[in-house]
Amino acid sequence: MHPTPTDGTRAGLADEFRRVRALTEHLCEPLAIEDYGLQVVPEASPPKWHLAHVSWFYETFLLMPSLDGYRPFDPRFAHLFNSYYEQTGSGFWPRAERGLLSRPRVEEVYDYRRHVDTAMLRLIECCDAERWPRVELRLRIGLNHEQQHQELLLTDIKRNLAHNPLRPAYRADLAAPAPGAPEPLNWVSFDGGLVEIGAGAEGFAYDNERPRHRVFLEPFALADRLVSNAEFLAFVEDGGYHDPAHWLSDGWARVRAEGWEAPLYWERVDGRWQTLTLGGMRPLDPAEPVCHLSYYEADAYASWAGKSLPTEAQWEHAAAGVALAGNFLDSGLLHPRPARGSGIRQLFGDLWEWTASAYLAYPGYRAPGGAIGEYNGKFMCNQMVLRGGSCVSSRDHLRLSYRNFFYPHERWQFKGFRLAEVE
Amino acid sequence: MHPTPTDGTRAGLADEFRRVRALTEHLCEPLAIEDYGLQVVPEASPPKWHLAHVSWFYETFLLMPSLDGYRPFDPRFAHLFNSYYEQTGSGFWPRAERGLLSRPRVEEVYDYRRHVDTAMLRLIECCDAERWPRVELRLRIGLNHEQQHQELLLTDIKRNLAHNPLRPAYRADLAAPAPGAPEPLNWVSFDGGLVEIGAGAEGFAYDNERPRHRVFLEPFALADRLVSNAEFLAFVEDGGYHDPAHWLSDGWARVRAEGWEAPLYWERVDGRWQTLTLGGMRPLDPAEPVCHLSYYEADAYASWAGKSLPTEAQWEHAAAGVALAGNFLDSGLLHPRPARGSGIRQLFGDLWEWTASAYLAYPGYRAPGGAIGEYNGKFMCNQMVLRGGSCVSSRDHLRLSYRNFFYPHERWQFKGFRLAEVE
Amino acid sequence: MHPTPTDGTRAGLADEFRRVRALTEHLCEPLAIEDYGLQVVPEASPPKWHLAHVSWFYETFLLMPSLDGYRPFDPRFAHLFNSYYEQTGSGFWPRAERGLLSRPRVEEVYDYRRHVDTAMLRLIECCDAERWPRVELRLRIGLNHEQQHQELLLTDIKRNLAHNPLRPAYRADLAAPAPGAPEPLNWVSFDGGLVEIGAGAEGFAYDNERPRHRVFLEPFALADRLVSNAEFLAFVEDGGYHDPAHWLSDGWARVRAEGWEAPLYWERVDGRWQTLTLGGMRPLDPAEPVCHLSYYEADAYASWAGKSLPTEAQWEHAAAGVALAGNFLDSGLLHPRPARGSGIRQLFGDLWEWTASAYLAYPGYRAPGGAIGEYNGKFMCNQMVLRGGSCVSSRDHLRLSYRNFFYPHERWQFKGFRLAEVE
Amino acid sequence: MHPTPTDGTRAGLADEFRRVRALTEHLCEPLAIEDYGLQVVPEASPPKWHLAHVSWFYETFLLMPSLDGYRPFDPRFAHLFNSYYEQTGSGFWPRAERGLLSRPRVEEVYDYRRHVDTAMLRLIECCDAERWPRVELRLRIGLNHEQQHQELLLTDIKRNLAHNPLRPAYRADLAAPAPGAPEPLNWVSFDGGLVEIGAGAEGFAYDNERPRHRVFLEPFALADRLVSNAEFLAFVEDGGYHDPAHWLSDGWARVRAEGWEAPLYWERVDGRWQTLTLGGMRPLDPAEPVCHLSYYEADAYASWAGKSLPTEAQWEHAAAGVALAGNFLDSGLLHPRPARGSGIRQLFGDLWEWTASAYLAYPGYRAPGGAIGEYNGKFMCNQMVLRGGSCVSSRDHLRLSYRNFFYPHERWQFKGFRLAEVE
Repeated sequence: MHPTPTDGTRAGLADEFRRVRALTEHLCEPLAIEDYGLQVVPEASPPKWHLAHVSWFYETFLLMPSLDGYRPFDPRFAHLFNSYYEQTGSGFWPRAERGLLSRPRVEEVYDYRRHVDTAMLRLIECCDAERWPRVELRLRIGLNHEQQHQELLLTDIKRNLAHNPLRPAYRADLAAPAPGAPEPLNWVSFDGGLVEIGAGAEGFAYDNERPRHRVFLEPFALADRLVSNAEFLAFVEDGGYHDPAHWLSDGWARVRAEGWEAPLYWERVDGRWQTLTLGGMRPLDPAEPVCHLSYYEADAYASWAGKSLPTEAQWEHAAAGVALAGNFLDSGLLHPRPARGSGIRQLFGDLWEWTASAYLAYPGYRAPGGAIGEYNGKFMCNQMVLRGGSCVSSRDHLRLSYRNFFYPHERWQFKGFRLAEVE
Repeated sequence: MHPTPTDGTRAGLADEFRRVRALTEHLCEPLAIEDYGLQVVPEASPPKWHLAHVSWFYETFLLMPSLDGYRPFDPRFAHLFNSYYEQTGSGFWPRAERGLLSRPRVEEVYDYRRHVDTAMLRLIECCDAERWPRVELRLRIGLNHEQQHQELLLTDIKRNLAHNPLRPAYRADLAAPAPGAPEPLNWVSFDGGLVEIGAGAEGFAYDNERPRHRVFLEPFALADRLVSNAEFLAFVEDGGYHDPAHWLSDGWARVRAEGWEAPLYWERVDGRWQTLTLGGMRPLDPAEPVCHLSYYEADAYASWAGKSLPTEAQWEHAAAGVALAGNFLDSGLLHPRPARGSGIRQLFGDLWEWTASAYLAYPGYRAPGGAIGEYNGKFMCNQMVLRGGSCVSSRDHLRLSYRNFFYPHERWQFKGFRLAEVE
Repeated sequence: MHPTPTDGTRAGLADEFRRVRALTEHLCEPLAIEDYGLQVVPEASPPKWHLAHVSWFYETFLLMPSLDGYRPFDPRFAHLFNSYYEQTGSGFWPRAERGLLSRPRVEEVYDYRRHVDTAMLRLIECCDAERWPRVELRLRIGLNHEQQHQELLLTDIKRNLAHNPLRPAYRADLAAPAPGAPEPLNWVSFDGGLVEIGAGAEGFAYDNERPRHRVFLEPFALADRLVSNAEFLAFVEDGGYHDPAHWLSDGWARVRAEGWEAPLYWERVDGRWQTLTLGGMRPLDPAEPVCHLSYYEADAYASWAGKSLPTEAQWEHAAAGVALAGNFLDSGLLHPRPARGSGIRQLFGDLWEWTASAYLAYPGYRAPGGAIGEYNGKFMCNQMVLRGGSCVSSRDHLRLSYRNFFYPHERWQFKGFRLAEVE
Repeated sequence: MHPTPTDGTRAGLADEFRRVRALTEHLCEPLAIEDYGLQVVPEASPPKWHLAHVSWFYETFLLMPSLDGYRPFDPRFAHLFNSYYEQTGSGFWPRAERGLLSRPRVEEVYDYRRHVDTAMLRLIECCDAERWPRVELRLRIGLNHEQQHQELLLTDIKRNLAHNPLRPAYRADLAAPAPGAPEPLNWVSFDGGLVEIGAGAEGFAYDNERPRHRVFLEPFALADRLVSNAEFLAFVEDGGYHDPAHWLSDGWARVRAEGWEAPLYWERVDGRWQTLTLGGMRPLDPAEPVCHLSYYEADAYASWAGKSLPTEAQWEHAAAGVALAGNFLDSGLLHPRPARGSGIRQLFGDLWEWTASAYLAYPGYRAPGGAIGEYNGKFMCNQMVLRGGSCVSSRDHLRLSYRNFFYPHERWQFKGFRLAEVE
């Protein structure tokens, strides 16, 4: 469902647009009307907001500037559904208060989507040739943007429902695999040297993946799979959450301030660890990769284990020859699965992998001008890079050079980690 | 809709029960499903919570102890829908997080109500004579309790919708009266002396209205009507919100911390004052009593005007011979209306009147034992008494001796005030 | 200090002024320079601030308006040492930041005092007859004001030093009495009826003690002494701080939020209760009155004991015929002592007694105009009345009608309580 | 005054120790006793705390483990003066409350220093050969540690005094240079390529400077001097603090939350910019480098100017052949001075330079074990690297590979920046 596989024609893009839009709505089908407005923490936006915001994006960056005669569905929505674009002039409703709006109603938001869909398809069909290149680029950004929000939709639904002591499932019909034991962990060595990372000049990529550039790597090794629940449980049971020795200072402060005792969604019920999934509560599967943890927890585990986390350059170099395949949204599992097989694996899909790299500009990076330039560049501080996509990412949204980023304390995304060492 | 007018038979009480329950649901009819879960500030609970909480009250204090074989609809609801009763053993979901629960769904809450209704009617019909007196008393408390929540339902809906910049109306069909000029304000004198206030031993009353007791009053005078918007606007335009001279210290701190410039729901649009009503935005009517203000604002106005607020004893003494009639929920206006006629008026209905009395125990007051004793007594600190009922109170819920109470900074109820002076 | 024992002549007032000023400085003698600037919580001001603030009071309300040619010591001090008078025009340095000023130095503050002393004595001597009545009244207020700050100086020093884990004593040389058993508690009955309270028109009193007025009291009884440590310990050991049944709602919230387990300054060391005094740590004396507790704790104890707290009218009526004698600052103990003897006692001195009365205006009260009118009236909300003075009050500062007031959660003053009941 | 220039003998180290200790006390000479305990924000510790903490460091890491029979001055000081070492077992007094301790008195802290000095000199003299290597290493760390606190002492004194509206100067006798115009800014180009950075295996360096390693650099250019006040003022006057276009998202949030309008210590008085220095208020000198700003402000300026900040690798590579000379603590100016001369300058001294590099581990970095390993490694998250030292750093404390680090919002250190660009 994403630009790259299209044939590049306008018709192909229109199909692409329809598929992306339909998937967003498909993901909302299991929701009750009551779930659409829910936001239990500032970072987990309500489904209704996601549905409207991605539509606002097309309206603001494509329809208003490029479709003659376009009338916005409701001009007040610009204020309500702008996320953080300071330069659009509308201002934006506070992020932490997205759940405090019972109107527009869910049905009205779907009407808004229809309104935008119709206009977008008209734009794709009728746009003159002169404007088309810019429209096409922004459309690809818009589709990728909506795909990012599809992932957030699922992580936010999980987060918001998890707050409810009735423990409602998003989809009670999801199959729960039988727990098992993890496969042994092996190490894969790399020579390093002067390597290249980042997106080349051709094809669609976000600005933050460019320019492609050279990086020098010392020889290093990576674990051939993600750290498993069984392994992480050993850290928990060794008192990992009660001993500051292995924690970053800011991480330890967070552990104490928020009373962390285990990864998010782990719960000890009658002496047995369970974990919340989009399919409801399940016994913790030792073989699955450990999930929903912060950078601080990943780093503390690595320190406890005498290892480190990979840098993003190490990761990208190691993944460069590996097929972009794995457990994505497309599998329908909505949960990571145990590593199976041999060789380096789980690089793509299952879980975003925390890297040891801060999210910063590549050498020579320039943010595009105007409001759309606020997409990536202004977040280049205080966040860490994650790589590889997760079980709720669309496969065709991802690239080898794709850089995801979150604050080091954030846990609600599908995140795990892999060990590394410099030899 | 309330106990007193019944004939006292069980059949009469059953009818009463049905009427109270039906009114609560009737008040929810204009709501969208999306509105039921909304809570924009800790004090304004979601409609869904009110619907469930009043049912929990019957379940906890009547059905569980007195109906043999009663099975709760869902035992987990005790935790979710208890408000603040520490002694029931269930604990309670944090008040500030009542809007963070998308489940149970609205439909399930209505099912819960049906479940409780059926059991309650069975209890009323089948309760043995020995248990009946206690059941009857608690039933009367339960009905009064639900009536209180009917008022809160409306004030909370108003508060929650007001946060939305789309300014949705609860009922767009409400008639808006034509603005006018206020009638002149006159003073009514009272000799005072040794008077009695409080509820006598007979008839239903809350514990906090008892015992009836003697109070000595100096001669005093009361304004014959509530302070109007026109009068309060003069205070605003005189810089009242920018001059500390007339404010209580805590009040002035609040003014600055929250940036108050006028009563809640007043809004200056293009140089003209408007006010939000349950029927939507309306031009400010100079003749209407000023509404939705804190004790601090009422007190500052009184100081500015060289007057004071009545004590609750003065108020009750003055109201003792006045018919309990006025603009209540029953009028369907859902808004205060201008004083019309002559003589002391607006004592009942229109708006709760702030008094100069702190909410404290009457001499010899004892709270009842057990969890139900937490109804009134434990709030006897830091709050001020209000008297007389409002346009969203049921007429037959009120009594001359009725004591309402709120924190002095709270503004979202239908509250106004009347001037007094000691001669 | 203070006005009443003077002969009323200007020379007598000048002596009085010198005595009050000297006592303030005498109380600071045990301090290290380092202690003068300390403020560990917003409510406990640094000694240096008290020394300067009381001087600012004379400067602002007497020297500037009434002494021709007076030059302030440093005009910037008006901003730094005004406490909360909004109408003086200087604004005031934030209360919570009084400890964040290392300058002026202690020595400079003493120079400031000398400057004000000299000018004040000149004013007292040279003021013309026309201005004298107002000067005299304000001087009496200024002296009483400084006496209030002498008490605060000691309570704040205690609070600020108590925060230090080294547990420094203010005066290690204070004699510690041998612990003993409390005397039995007896009840004294009063008929009540229509009584008068408040200050009459003659003599010095604060505005809030006036006008004298009639109050009707039901028959009541008061305990003949304050509640003792032994009695309060029984409440603690009965789980009083862990059972919400007896607590006001706001009180219970405070208990949990701040983790209260006992009165302020009680500390369990090796299984034995100790308490911090101005003379350092001492074993808890069962016979002493319980001290340093909030209204919430006093009220919870009374509820647990099946009693109540006296109203201020009950207290004043009961104390009307009792000599104003007891354990005051003048005794030099700086700590309450056990009740000894018989009959109603400890009404004056030892500890301020929490009453069940909110701090409100007496009927017909008017605050004086101008900034000096901010002394008492603007605090008439959210606070409770205390009566009788304490072991750190000057005896001649007190009156039968004296009304002290604090927020119900505040504990750092020398406060205790006495039981009451309405018969 | 620091290890490297010593002759390496024990006698040389003892001299070094005496000199470092003496300098710390020399820097405190201008203080009043009242200044020693002052802390106006959590990050700016009181001078008294610095004096004691550096002594505690020797006591904990040298005297207790290595000097037989050593008795600590006061065992309770371990809790009071530990900064953040979790593994020492003493715990630590909260950082934000270091100013809430009036005891130990200043004189007692100096006694503590004497006690530690005597013992340390004995240890240096008498330590047996077997223990000596570890003692020597830790002594060098301890001396460097004290030098770091000498710098913090000055930055914290500046911060704490600046809060006082009386604007006291630390040293009113400091010479204020005449304002001038900045010299033109020129660019210096570097070829980049595969370069080495970090400290080699020999000589003293902190763990975070190692291992020395290879980094690939694209060709780049650096400005030949720091950005001046005149240049930064142009950004301010262009509305830089009111336009989100050039700000990082977290930076813009900070600008709005804290109301930033200019760098810290800039103040507009009667339309003219002034700035606070350790010598008091001075007119802003256009020629001086802009000082006391956050990473956010440095980055926003660079974005506005169409440039970037250097990475730490670029900086170190550019500085590799430059003499480690400049305006340090040793100059006695205690303030940055304008760039004079030609060629790349101000790399060392004047101001710490914000780099575009997050503070992270070098490849293969391992933190030492035990509590002393908490020195640097646990802060490798959320902070940015600064390079080059400042006008309040000791020259011989610095190295080419020295990495300083602060949170991006912090402004109270002597920090500035230099522009860079990738060609």
